[in-house]
Amino acid sequence: MDDLKKAIRSIPDFPKKGIVFRDITTLLANPEAFGKTLDLMETYCRERKADKIVAIESRGFIFGGALANRLGVGLVIVRKPGKLPGQTISQEYELEYGTDKIEIHTDSINKGDSVIVVDDLVATGGTLEASCKLIEKAGGKVAGISVLVDLAFIPWREKLKGYDIQALVKFESE
Amino acid sequence: MDDLKKAIRSIPDFPKKGIVFRDITTLLANPEAFGKTLDLMETYCRERKADKIVAIESRGFIFGGALANRLGVGLVIVRKPGKLPGQTISQEYELEYGTDKIEIHTDSINKGDSVIVVDDLVATGGTLEASCKLIEKAGGKVAGISVLVDLAFIPWREKLKGYDIQALVKFESE
Repeated sequence: MDDLKKAIRSIPDFPKKGIVFRDITTLLANPEAFGKTLDLMETYCRERKADKIVAIESRGFIFGGALANRLGVGLVIVRKPGKLPGQTISQEYELEYGTDKIEIHTDSINKGDSVIVVDDLVATGGTLEASCKLIEKAGGKVAGISVLVDLAFIPWREKLKGYDIQALVKFESE
Repeated sequence: MDDLKKAIRSIPDFPKKGIVFRDITTLLANPEAFGKTLDLMETYCRERKADKIVAIESRGFIFGGALANRLGVGLVIVRKPGKLPGQTISQEYELEYGTDKIEIHTDSINKGDSVIVVDDLVATGGTLEASCKLIEKAGGKVAGISVLVDLAFIPWREKLKGYDIQALVKFESE
């Protein structure tokens, strides 16, 4: 998807020296590129017969809302701790230093739901893996994961093995 | 919009005792209610001839992405400090205790852009006012503000006077 890749801006030394940040805000500002991204994600979700979309805070929300509406299925949000007001289940995951946690509403997934998890990118795979675990704890089935950007030089495949992943744009180096 | 109001769950004593939290996750899980929300927001944006959507982190992203795609216009995101990698302008706003800050990419708004600001709800109006100021600093014109929920018992009107606001569901008391 060369046209999508070109719509993403690269910013050197953000958030720290030596890192090239892949900035999707330029793609979001481009209606054709954003529309094509959603078209491809929608096709993937239809093929895998998703009956629910799970979007990860916060950039996953940008894609997840539009996708759930296009598909006519429910949208479920995975959030940082303390944000969801109902009964939740939570899942820890590792950061470079320390751990973090995400939550989902317990009643947001029904037993047997076929769910696609949506986020802007896969890097370490930590939040995606934690999100999949939450969905499974709640009784749902992860039918796939859809992201715009794959930072392919970071080893996330081991963490997400067993899950099908759609990634539209791949960056092979930092 | 009684059907939209019914789709929103009320959770007492969250985040603290005495507050009734209006939980939109039940509306997001309901494809008809979420679809109708977006239909009404889309109509508002078309009437006001928006040529850009500005969505506020993070629940504003859920509506903003879908709206920008439906309208075929660019999406711009307003984020918490340190998240946007390009050159930014920032705006402080008051919290109950202390202040907070939001940012926008300097090059994301062009002079004369006609912008609709989108978020999930209006409460104190602080982040919405700060977002409008950012858009104006960048040379854009705020054509309107669209939110799902109006917490009408909190006095936000003074802060947002001069701006047109669409709010789909109104709660008159806590």
